[in-house]
Amino acid sequence: MEKIEHIGIAVKNISEANKIYEALLGVAPYKSEEVKSEGVKTSFFECGESKIELLEATRADSPIAKFIEKRGEGIHHIAFAVKDIKSEMERLQKEGFVLLNEIPKKGADNKLVIFLHPKSTNGVLVELCQDIDNNLK
Amino acid sequence: MEKIEHIGIAVKNISEANKIYEALLGVAPYKSEEVKSEGVKTSFFECGESKIELLEATRADSPIAKFIEKRGEGIHHIAFAVKDIKSEMERLQKEGFVLLNEIPKKGADNKLVIFLHPKSTNGVLVELCQDIDNNLK
Repeated sequence: MEKIEHIGIAVKNISEANKIYEALLGVAPYKSEEVKSEGVKTSFFECGESKIELLEATRADSPIAKFIEKRGEGIHHIAFAVKDIKSEMERLQKEGFVLLNEIPKKGADNKLVIFLHPKSTNGVLVELCQDIDNNLK
Repeated sequence: MEKIEHIGIAVKNISEANKIYEALLGVAPYKSEEVKSEGVKTSFFECGESKIELLEATRADSPIAKFIEKRGEGIHHIAFAVKDIKSEMERLQKEGFVLLNEIPKKGADNKLVIFLHPKSTNGVLVELCQDIDNNLK
């Protein structure tokens, strides 16, 4: 893993949460984006080499809606940056980690992403992200 | 906030979790430390400019034991690095954030730390950390 790419935080109301995290972090969000396939609206704040991603559900069957229903608002996942997502997927499967998707999918902020099942990572939903530009080289 | 200093993950068995996170991150923990005042054993892994901190409770009344009892293993807190913890505390109190401790305390990995109440940060337990060396300058 190259670095913590971002921390995803599930919130009920992203407009209100944007104000809170702008006050906390001292910077405005640099991007807002809807990922329709995941049923989420997102906003991103820079923090050093990493980002904070806020996520609000746009549908009742969104993973974020289910998370908030079960556990309330809070930290949803950690995403690590990788250079080559396919080789990392192979390496982690050999180590016994369980992948939630077998093929990388398009995530927010121009990334290819996969998730690891929390049961293999002490209850932590882990995402791997690779810049899409890297993949096309 | 300068950067994400670390992400704290509550685990039941730190020896087992060390093996899992070593396999995940591809590096061994660089430090293990007990913080008796908090009732925790910790281990730290480097990841870019940030760290992953694993936390196992050493007593039943440790905040980590209570967290796991209520929510199971998983991400416990986000810690941000700050240069001057006292000025950040003043700034955040003026912004309406609620501090869990009024005086910075000694945390793991040679830091002065304070926590913000999750009710003011969308359910996220936020820690601020300052290197103790910085404080003595």
